[in-house]
Amino acid sequence: MFKHDKNLLEMVRVERPNPTYAAMLTEQLGGPHGELKAAMQYISQSFRIKDPMIKDLFMDIASEELGHMEMVATAVNLLNGHEVDAQSVQSGHIESHVVTGLNPYLSSASGAPWTAAYVDVTGDLPADLLSNIAAEQRAKVVYEYLHRQINDRHVRRMIDFLLNREEAHNTLFREAFTKVQNTGSNMDWGVDKDARLYFNLSKPGKYFDLSSPQAPSFQNPDQTSPQN
Amino acid sequence: MFKHDKNLLEMVRVERPNPTYAAMLTEQLGGPHGELKAAMQYISQSFRIKDPMIKDLFMDIASEELGHMEMVATAVNLLNGHEVDAQSVQSGHIESHVVTGLNPYLSSASGAPWTAAYVDVTGDLPADLLSNIAAEQRAKVVYEYLHRQINDRHVRRMIDFLLNREEAHNTLFREAFTKVQNTGSNMDWGVDKDARLYFNLSKPGKYFDLSSPQAPSFQNPDQTSPQN
Amino acid sequence: MFKHDKNLLEMVRVERPNPTYAAMLTEQLGGPHGELKAAMQYISQSFRIKDPMIKDLFMDIASEELGHMEMVATAVNLLNGHEVDAQSVQSGHIESHVVTGLNPYLSSASGAPWTAAYVDVTGDLPADLLSNIAAEQRAKVVYEYLHRQINDRHVRRMIDFLLNREEAHNTLFREAFTKVQNTGSNMDWGVDKDARLYFNLSKPGKYFDLSSPQAPSFQNPDQTSPQN
Amino acid sequence: MFKHDKNLLEMVRVERPNPTYAAMLTEQLGGPHGELKAAMQYISQSFRIKDPMIKDLFMDIASEELGHMEMVATAVNLLNGHEVDAQSVQSGHIESHVVTGLNPYLSSASGAPWTAAYVDVTGDLPADLLSNIAAEQRAKVVYEYLHRQINDRHVRRMIDFLLNREEAHNTLFREAFTKVQNTGSNMDWGVDKDARLYFNLSKPGKYFDLSSPQAPSFQNPDQTSPQN
Amino acid sequence: MFKHDKNLLEMVRVERPNPTYAAMLTEQLGGPHGELKAAMQYISQSFRIKDPMIKDLFMDIASEELGHMEMVATAVNLLNGHEVDAQSVQSGHIESHVVTGLNPYLSSASGAPWTAAYVDVTGDLPADLLSNIAAEQRAKVVYEYLHRQINDRHVRRMIDFLLNREEAHNTLFREAFTKVQNTGSNMDWGVDKDARLYFNLSKPGKYFDLSSPQAPSFQNPDQTSPQN
Amino acid sequence: MFKHDKNLLEMVRVERPNPTYAAMLTEQLGGPHGELKAAMQYISQSFRIKDPMIKDLFMDIASEELGHMEMVATAVNLLNGHEVDAQSVQSGHIESHVVTGLNPYLSSASGAPWTAAYVDVTGDLPADLLSNIAAEQRAKVVYEYLHRQINDRHVRRMIDFLLNREEAHNTLFREAFTKVQNTGSNMDWGVDKDARLYFNLSKPGKYFDLSSPQAPSFQNPDQTSPQN
Repeated sequence: MFKHDKNLLEMVRVERPNPTYAAMLTEQLGGPHGELKAAMQYISQSFRIKDPMIKDLFMDIASEELGHMEMVATAVNLLNGHEVDAQSVQSGHIESHVVTGLNPYLSSASGAPWTAAYVDVTGDLPADLLSNIAAEQRAKVVYEYLHRQINDRHVRRMIDFLLNREEAHNTLFREAFTKVQNTGSNMDWGVDKDARLYFNLSKPGKYFDLSSPQAPSFQNPDQTSPQN
Repeated sequence: MFKHDKNLLEMVRVERPNPTYAAMLTEQLGGPHGELKAAMQYISQSFRIKDPMIKDLFMDIASEELGHMEMVATAVNLLNGHEVDAQSVQSGHIESHVVTGLNPYLSSASGAPWTAAYVDVTGDLPADLLSNIAAEQRAKVVYEYLHRQINDRHVRRMIDFLLNREEAHNTLFREAFTKVQNTGSNMDWGVDKDARLYFNLSKPGKYFDLSSPQAPSFQNPDQTSPQN
Repeated sequence: MFKHDKNLLEMVRVERPNPTYAAMLTEQLGGPHGELKAAMQYISQSFRIKDPMIKDLFMDIASEELGHMEMVATAVNLLNGHEVDAQSVQSGHIESHVVTGLNPYLSSASGAPWTAAYVDVTGDLPADLLSNIAAEQRAKVVYEYLHRQINDRHVRRMIDFLLNREEAHNTLFREAFTKVQNTGSNMDWGVDKDARLYFNLSKPGKYFDLSSPQAPSFQNPDQTSPQN
Repeated sequence: MFKHDKNLLEMVRVERPNPTYAAMLTEQLGGPHGELKAAMQYISQSFRIKDPMIKDLFMDIASEELGHMEMVATAVNLLNGHEVDAQSVQSGHIESHVVTGLNPYLSSASGAPWTAAYVDVTGDLPADLLSNIAAEQRAKVVYEYLHRQINDRHVRRMIDFLLNREEAHNTLFREAFTKVQNTGSNMDWGVDKDARLYFNLSKPGKYFDLSSPQAPSFQNPDQTSPQN
Repeated sequence: MFKHDKNLLEMVRVERPNPTYAAMLTEQLGGPHGELKAAMQYISQSFRIKDPMIKDLFMDIASEELGHMEMVATAVNLLNGHEVDAQSVQSGHIESHVVTGLNPYLSSASGAPWTAAYVDVTGDLPADLLSNIAAEQRAKVVYEYLHRQINDRHVRRMIDFLLNREEAHNTLFREAFTKVQNTGSNMDWGVDKDARLYFNLSKPGKYFDLSSPQAPSFQNPDQTSPQN
Repeated sequence: MFKHDKNLLEMVRVERPNPTYAAMLTEQLGGPHGELKAAMQYISQSFRIKDPMIKDLFMDIASEELGHMEMVATAVNLLNGHEVDAQSVQSGHIESHVVTGLNPYLSSASGAPWTAAYVDVTGDLPADLLSNIAAEQRAKVVYEYLHRQINDRHVRRMIDFLLNREEAHNTLFREAFTKVQNTGSNMDWGVDKDARLYFNLSKPGKYFDLSSPQAPSFQNPDQTSPQN
């Protein structure tokens, strides 16, 4: 069950309204690499996880992503200002000014409504963890793009916080991956000859051949230099 | 911020796997009147609410809907059984058997991915409350349809619980509406003559004329004397 | 069957082209609370209605919404001007300038194509009427937002007309609701104890308890004194 | 403006309920080549048409398509039967049994909600007419597929009627095309050398070269001998 | 199987970055009449074609459309410039600046993600060819609109090339149509009386009656004189 | 530019038609982890890649995915059989039988049309490679699920081939990742304290703390011992 604490995970402020940036920031609320996607992906994946520690990890992070979603939405709301005025948005979606009465809108920055098509779930733990590692990496990149395009120091600080939290989640998912990397879809890699061929279909140019294919895996923290 | 309690809001069990019913029940996870929609709608509407009691109400219910979502997803997961087998689904979507590895899928019963197009937010409190009252009423109806089509007594009990909770939310939103019904989009009803005309455009037949138009309003259950 | 009368329901003019406002107004053509949605919702709901008066009401209003759609589209067309020029749109979708040759486009103001996901139908009359009441209320709110953002007096007059008609529809649906409020999903309200509990899941803060829950219902204007 | 006549364009009956066929027939209600698409396409295209005869043609056909939509929806409604029962649907969408209370649903046969992405509008008359000719041809084909898969003689008769009407519309759009074929995007065909080249990119095999490219055009039935 | 040649089908250059035009040009990458749609439509239609010459034609053109897609994407990429800066986009989607890191985005100019709903396939050759003729005609019109709105001479040249190629494809599909016009859905046209009636449903005004209905067909350029 | 070779990348046969399995296999044609998605993702990501070897790799694999798409579509086409018959599909989408005339359909197994929302592009090489590694892993899992649910030995062999090729791609993307892992979004990992905290938001239970966070990275197969 979920409980709500009226305190935000981290305080959110803005220096001043900025409806254009509100539209841009909407990307991380309702876009493909945004907070709603992250929360829904981890919750959806959690149901068949047997290992209680990994299941706990998924729900810890999913819950935090819901809190991030609330933070991003709070910032969008503040940036939207005080009067509906679609023309105050220089580019990006204008739904907040024609429909939501300045409330945040669950869409991309350009107004495409959030869709569960963004959510990747396979029930195979190595695959789901790789999906999550990739999702967190993409979320970080989007926050970097957004960070570069705003001067508001409060907003930058919020983005800094969120970006670093995605990094933390990424590290955690990576650590969980090392635990399960010899299971499920990661087993028996490169056994079949078709898994060891390179098809050179874009010419001219050639990349390289596959000699000893390896399943995706992260440095083994026990055997290589310590990552902790 | 959101916190997760590993206990479900109410225990969920099933008598036996039932992949067809799992697909059907998916409707209330990722369909237009399902739990994700409800949670997202109330959270999205909450940001600009000034009245702390009403804001609290929205977040109490939104949190509960997240808990409902978890219950429905848990039931879908249990009903999906133990082996991917798309042909065990007699009708309805088969994504759990070809993609999600028996995890629940955020779609309608027929496999249309959840979309934020389901979420109604206007920032006008009377309009948003009417949207919520209608949404809860529709959710109840869908649960009634689902209840009729399953014999599993555990599933029926869960549906009973959820159906009654939607009724409770409905009642609460209705009560909140009575507090705000003389504000926002509910004010000055029927002032203009165009708001008092009936256009008889489907013939033959005629419904009736508008004489003294009234804004939507609810009876005060304690007094049935005029509210306010 | 539907017949078309080449006269608009009400004449539509604009003072001058305004491609940005054309994009904004598109919201009420192809957005979630727009005219196409209203028409499709009422038509879709009408098929199983037995009461001939209520069925007539639904088709009278559905037909009028088709006429509204034509009016809004006519205004968008006039506002789009005479030359495709995407840069004349300051914000909002630009499809009229790259695809439709200045014809209106069935999307939100930001260019998300209209989807039947906007249409709410349950076949339960109390639920469908509450959906319609809420839909009309949202349509009114969107027209209010659009009205504030344009000075063109002809466009304002058209919006005034449409806004008042949505109010009239709302009143009529409300009146129909009073007739059916003791049927279908509105019966036996609050019988189960779960329908009478309040779950305080957002803290700190508490709204209130449910004591004697009531189904959504409207004051019967003939029996109680007028509200307000 | 649109007016509704309570008589259907042509009476609709079914021999008996057939929920599976109801799902299949839904394709022509809310699928890509269905009646809603046709109506919306012709209405959307009509706004900038100057020639009053052609504009009249578009609205005559658009209105008829709305009437077809009503007929198809009526048939779906009758075929859906009397009790929600998703398992009575052997294949195809089950939304009528979990959400719409046996009302028709605006989607494909498999439950993908109707989207305005189906609607083709360019504002160029030759292009729009070719789109309509193609759309009517596709609609006919879908009706042929549906005709083959049902024995109910009333349903077959309805499909016969609709199929033939699409043929009539097709003929009319073709005739309109002959009038405008020397205008807009159909002018100056094959002037540039790039318009006269054949790129043989799929090998082995070669189709043929372009010698004297011709714009799409139809035989004028009054001037040439019947084709074939 | 598909092979990639690192040379573009035709060299692509731009005079200077133009992020607004990049957004506009995105329409022909991921919009309803864009290159991805064309490629996917012809590939999807090809599978059941028996006639090897026509099948070859479809795959020749499909392959070329993939090459067009690459050209348009290359242009969008160059026009996007060197720094993510959503505000450099005056109107149109901003996804390249918040998500894709200046890479092209598979959407309409306004940011609606590409959907297979754009792809028309019926397996009936006359219908599919008419769909393709219409699709090519629409593609040409969109390129005309885009051509008018840019001064960059390199971009104009690319658009000229693509526009003329669509014309060539159109001519080829038209020629293929003449070969199959007496087959499939084009046979037995106007046999039923319902296919020969005109319903005058939009009033006042009347277009004309159907006397001798003709199936869509094109003049055979080898047998008739060139169409005026 | 793309060229098509009429030979399939690998021959495709089926033992016998199987319309239900055709619907299921559609998942890898037009579903979220299918071949179209893979091809579009790698093409979309390639435009800003500077390193010619990595760019070559992306286009080699993208081209192969187009060839996989053709193989899967060929199999779907053969499995669809010879007569449109929606009831021969026990579960899954029925569009091939009501619309496409037995041609393959670009959708999920349940009929949700393919959407570019499936395509992940950020322009940051570590993020894009992690997205591709995860995408290939998911594709493998889906093929495993599909393999388990069919006895047709030709189809199983095709799936084996495709599954192993995805493994090969995965290995190659992993190798490319080792080359770029100290660049872009992978740099300066865990510098900020927020990137080193664990938020225990799901209770009871706790996973573990982050001490020395590491960016996602893969063992260099040339330098470390094989990962057991």
